[in-house]
Amino acid sequence: MAIITLTTDFGEKDHFAGATKGAIYSELPDVKIVDISHSISPFNIPEAAYIIQNAYSSFPKGTIHIIGIDAEINPENKHIAIKLDDHYFICANNGIMSMICSEIAPEKIVEINIHDKIQTSFPVLDVFVKVACHIARGGTLEVIGKNIPEIKPIKNIVPYVNDDKTQIIGSVIYIDNYGNVVTNIKRSFFETIQKGRDFEISARNYTFKKIHKKYSDIVNFDIPENKRHDEGRKLVVFNSGNFLEIAVYKSNSATVGSASTLLGLGLMDAVSIKFTPKPVIPQGMELPKKIHNVSDFE
Amino acid sequence: MAIITLTTDFGEKDHFAGATKGAIYSELPDVKIVDISHSISPFNIPEAAYIIQNAYSSFPKGTIHIIGIDAEINPENKHIAIKLDDHYFICANNGIMSMICSEIAPEKIVEINIHDKIQTSFPVLDVFVKVACHIARGGTLEVIGKNIPEIKPIKNIVPYVNDDKTQIIGSVIYIDNYGNVVTNIKRSFFETIQKGRDFEISARNYTFKKIHKKYSDIVNFDIPENKRHDEGRKLVVFNSGNFLEIAVYKSNSATVGSASTLLGLGLMDAVSIKFTPKPVIPQGMELPKKIHNVSDFE
Amino acid sequence: MAIITLTTDFGEKDHFAGATKGAIYSELPDVKIVDISHSISPFNIPEAAYIIQNAYSSFPKGTIHIIGIDAEINPENKHIAIKLDDHYFICANNGIMSMICSEIAPEKIVEINIHDKIQTSFPVLDVFVKVACHIARGGTLEVIGKNIPEIKPIKNIVPYVNDDKTQIIGSVIYIDNYGNVVTNIKRSFFETIQKGRDFEISARNYTFKKIHKKYSDIVNFDIPENKRHDEGRKLVVFNSGNFLEIAVYKSNSATVGSASTLLGLGLMDAVSIKFTPKPVIPQGMELPKKIHNVSDFE
Repeated sequence: MAIITLTTDFGEKDHFAGATKGAIYSELPDVKIVDISHSISPFNIPEAAYIIQNAYSSFPKGTIHIIGIDAEINPENKHIAIKLDDHYFICANNGIMSMICSEIAPEKIVEINIHDKIQTSFPVLDVFVKVACHIARGGTLEVIGKNIPEIKPIKNIVPYVNDDKTQIIGSVIYIDNYGNVVTNIKRSFFETIQKGRDFEISARNYTFKKIHKKYSDIVNFDIPENKRHDEGRKLVVFNSGNFLEIAVYKSNSATVGSASTLLGLGLMDAVSIKFTPKPVIPQGMELPKKIHNVSDFE
Repeated sequence: MAIITLTTDFGEKDHFAGATKGAIYSELPDVKIVDISHSISPFNIPEAAYIIQNAYSSFPKGTIHIIGIDAEINPENKHIAIKLDDHYFICANNGIMSMICSEIAPEKIVEINIHDKIQTSFPVLDVFVKVACHIARGGTLEVIGKNIPEIKPIKNIVPYVNDDKTQIIGSVIYIDNYGNVVTNIKRSFFETIQKGRDFEISARNYTFKKIHKKYSDIVNFDIPENKRHDEGRKLVVFNSGNFLEIAVYKSNSATVGSASTLLGLGLMDAVSIKFTPKPVIPQGMELPKKIHNVSDFE
Repeated sequence: MAIITLTTDFGEKDHFAGATKGAIYSELPDVKIVDISHSISPFNIPEAAYIIQNAYSSFPKGTIHIIGIDAEINPENKHIAIKLDDHYFICANNGIMSMICSEIAPEKIVEINIHDKIQTSFPVLDVFVKVACHIARGGTLEVIGKNIPEIKPIKNIVPYVNDDKTQIIGSVIYIDNYGNVVTNIKRSFFETIQKGRDFEISARNYTFKKIHKKYSDIVNFDIPENKRHDEGRKLVVFNSGNFLEIAVYKSNSATVGSASTLLGLGLMDAVSIKFTPKPVIPQGMELPKKIHNVSDFE
């Protein structure tokens, strides 16, 4: 039994998500429909790219993902379907898939061409649902579109590295429900540039010299609980999606504050990492082993 | 396998929607439950009427729709079940169904009378779920209620037309997730009054002389993308539910603004359409054919 | 077919809930997943305790409830699984279950010990899902944890009663979607202390001498509808979960106001009940029967 997921900016109130599900069940009564998110900010492509990248791979192979953001068709915004990592994605060719595609090459990309039969102001329901049900029934992409070699890229999604590789300049791509500030700097990219060096992460007026493994690593459990003041403390982690994240321990934007509210960081703001030059080693000396515990990023 | 949908003002946080689903699965383990919306504004009957009208017909025939808005029973607020267009609706008799029923005559309306056995402060769970499961098992409406001839109407839901049919005065019935302003003027109603005449739509201090087919019709794709300034431009369309809607291209109330925030339009505000008298045709002359392309509303 | 419910503070936007569902379906394609709530305030344990207590018992026996609040494992925050009332609960041992457990004794509590194989910064997905699927397949709690005698209690969740039992001092534990103010005073507790006496409920500067059976009991239906002014009127009820609740008839925080906004009541605020001493009965006299209609709380 196929699974179809929905990631949209429809919001929680409007009828769009409900109507889309009704249309799917009308074609395929036995399919499973899973909401990934309907609360993407309207027309926010980087947010949608981040959400779908982090959610899709938990689903079984063969899952079909409908992404309904900025989906109105026009001369510059075509509809596409992609097979990648044994998952299917149906969306507009507006850059949403470029984050996933920068890591895993698509097996197949088609530009959907079933529109001659469809006049619509609700393309997710009238086009994407039809394509998803076609795939769920075992249909191939070639039947509903023509092959194209590549997708439209999204701008400024990759962090910048200077020539001598002493600095990474990334940016904030997502603020999560806890107000944590997610950057576009991935763990693997960071490690490739770091090569064991010390570093300093800067965001606004704040600096960090350590990346923790998990949020509660900032707590000193040797101090009695009633004498600790850890809630509200800032830290840096690689989050569960392996993105560098500036967080606040047990944050809540509405009460104790969050990384976003306390540091004043919003979408597109810069976060930079400076690496310390490796110490010059005088002749005849040897560096002690394991000054830096790379696996700990300390 | 039956489908039961839920449209309520329970919100996303409270336990009410979850508990309702638990109660349904306790009676019918194999039913499908689909959320249409739980974010209707509390006690807002026109909003609920708009949502259910636009969502229900995408579902398969036979679907059962629970509408949990203002559902506490009292001498003036009875519970009803309606069969209409081969769908079932269970709700309070508070006007929610009058928008749908003004377009399609109900096949059957019953006032639910199973309450003698039920003392409840949670009628959706204790009454509506029981009725829905009864219908899902193939039960008839007569078993759970007595026939009534008509439902309670909702006030001011239909736009006003003046006597010489030169003006429609409608009102805002819904603000959607993009901040688009939806009026109660439907396409069919508009066309019936328009009869090909030119028109001017007024809302606050803004006027529009054209109704576009889709949002991106306002974009001139001949101008290079980086020289265009279309985001934030106002336009009028008939939306996917065929309601006249004042929209803003790629709107976002939190960033670039929306029709609601930029025009200052809220629920119940007036939107009027004035029609230009047809030009008097002097004797012996003929009007050129197709001055107005009615199908384009231009 | 097993049911797994989700109650978390993941919010509606992030990918966490979607990814969790994907992981469950990857293990168990035929399970049913039901969202109870993803909008618990971040790290708010009393809110989560209230939501799960009010939702769980509507589900069929055997249902498995994943509660993802403050779930990062650390020396003071272990993962547990509980069997209680023929339902299963999987959560951190942070007090979330103490509200339910204060009413119904758990059949079994285990501290989950499958973590040696799992390095995770997303414990709901990596640990709770594994445990839930193990239980759904018919596995026992002993396989995934070691028995522990009791759970961590939550502080200040029970109302205070003075020594001569003339006063209850409770507190606000939840504000619902309608802005209704829910206290921690349960109907059974209230009745045990009241013993038929008159009472006065105080919250901020407001007092109430009556507890209504339902919200619309405050309406006088003998007065014509257009002469009534009942929307916005304050009242006290026992809600559908049997908690004492200060409510406003047809409230809406954004428009007419709600109990929370109109009375200025927030989480943790005090709500007290003073009981009137029973009148002294002079010798030879008898009290008339049924001065107080206890069942009406009047």
